[in-house]
Amino acid sequence: MKLISETLTYKTSGNTDILDITGDVARCVRETGIAHGFVNLFIPGSTAGLTTIEFESGVINDLKDAIDRMAPKNIPYAHDLRWGDGNGYSHVRAALLGPSLQIPIIAGNLALGTWQQVVLCDFDNRPRQRRVLLQLMGEV
Amino acid sequence: MKLISETLTYKTSGNTDILDITGDVARCVRETGIAHGFVNLFIPGSTAGLTTIEFESGVINDLKDAIDRMAPKNIPYAHDLRWGDGNGYSHVRAALLGPSLQIPIIAGNLALGTWQQVVLCDFDNRPRQRRVLLQLMGEV
Amino acid sequence: MKLISETLTYKTSGNTDILDITGDVARCVRETGIAHGFVNLFIPGSTAGLTTIEFESGVINDLKDAIDRMAPKNIPYAHDLRWGDGNGYSHVRAALLGPSLQIPIIAGNLALGTWQQVVLCDFDNRPRQRRVLLQLMGEV
Repeated sequence: MKLISETLTYKTSGNTDILDITGDVARCVRETGIAHGFVNLFIPGSTAGLTTIEFESGVINDLKDAIDRMAPKNIPYAHDLRWGDGNGYSHVRAALLGPSLQIPIIAGNLALGTWQQVVLCDFDNRPRQRRVLLQLMGEV
Repeated sequence: MKLISETLTYKTSGNTDILDITGDVARCVRETGIAHGFVNLFIPGSTAGLTTIEFESGVINDLKDAIDRMAPKNIPYAHDLRWGDGNGYSHVRAALLGPSLQIPIIAGNLALGTWQQVVLCDFDNRPRQRRVLLQLMGEV
Repeated sequence: MKLISETLTYKTSGNTDILDITGDVARCVRETGIAHGFVNLFIPGSTAGLTTIEFESGVINDLKDAIDRMAPKNIPYAHDLRWGDGNGYSHVRAALLGPSLQIPIIAGNLALGTWQQVVLCDFDNRPRQRRVLLQLMGEV
């Protein structure tokens, strides 16, 4: 049984920037040689999250619209009144989406659906450098 | 330490069809003989998700209502304008709920609360055949 | 490879009581001596959930406001009409947030962001005693 950690890094533009990271995660899986197991994904930070979606620009915009209904940018936030960061909505969006995800590895591949991609969602109100931590576990 | 993969399959009716899969997951746990560990659950596909809830028809309808407020069926979606699938709302709902879940195994049983069931939520706009991938890890 | 289970217990006040449990989780990590691995967190029960957020009272209130928009306390719930518990909104909130979370352990520490804390969210409409189940896995 192997347990291997990897770190992926991304430059994001903020403002609910959504990036497809599937190819990078799949490459890490191949490089470990794990044939049967799983990969845990985690994004450090309180203004970003992870999920899966079809990476198609129309539905990505639809997701942004839904997130904006859940935690609108243009309403008052107590966080902003206190700290003046202007990113209270970013924190709330990140907490609702969640920072972690787990995907099975079967026959050396991520067991995703055909139209299912892994996405990093950066909700902060400015460009950021982000890390996604992978932990790959399983049998070669 | 054992790592065992299992696949459960379901026929769903779509349109936010919510199925109780707790019994099937518990049976898989028993069949592996794992006494102490955890089970990772993942649903492949971009129009379905997993969570836990009390499987009682009243609150299941309450959950459907809340999801319909977050991503209403009857508003325009960019995904539908481009692809004509009519299931833009399904993709958004699935991305918000998430595809993965992890449950501890203690003394050979799922460590769920008394009124807590594991549910598959199919948000697609038509019947589907779904797979739920389980990875059971732990000590016998 | 070690797999160790721990249980944390908390008294909550209900009504979307949000508690910072980061210090307790970090202490468990240190006590196991695991240097490289991950911790799975799970909350049993159908009216509570787990996520991460900056534990700052302003943004905690902002999160409560967003959750109240998603599943308002003061609308009718089918669950309440049937069972009279008055906590239909609690069940819906818990199902939307989710019961599980996974955090990497790197160099013996939780790999959280600087302003990212682990929080227990108790959505029930009365005080509860809660357990959070930890499963720590990895290499010493």
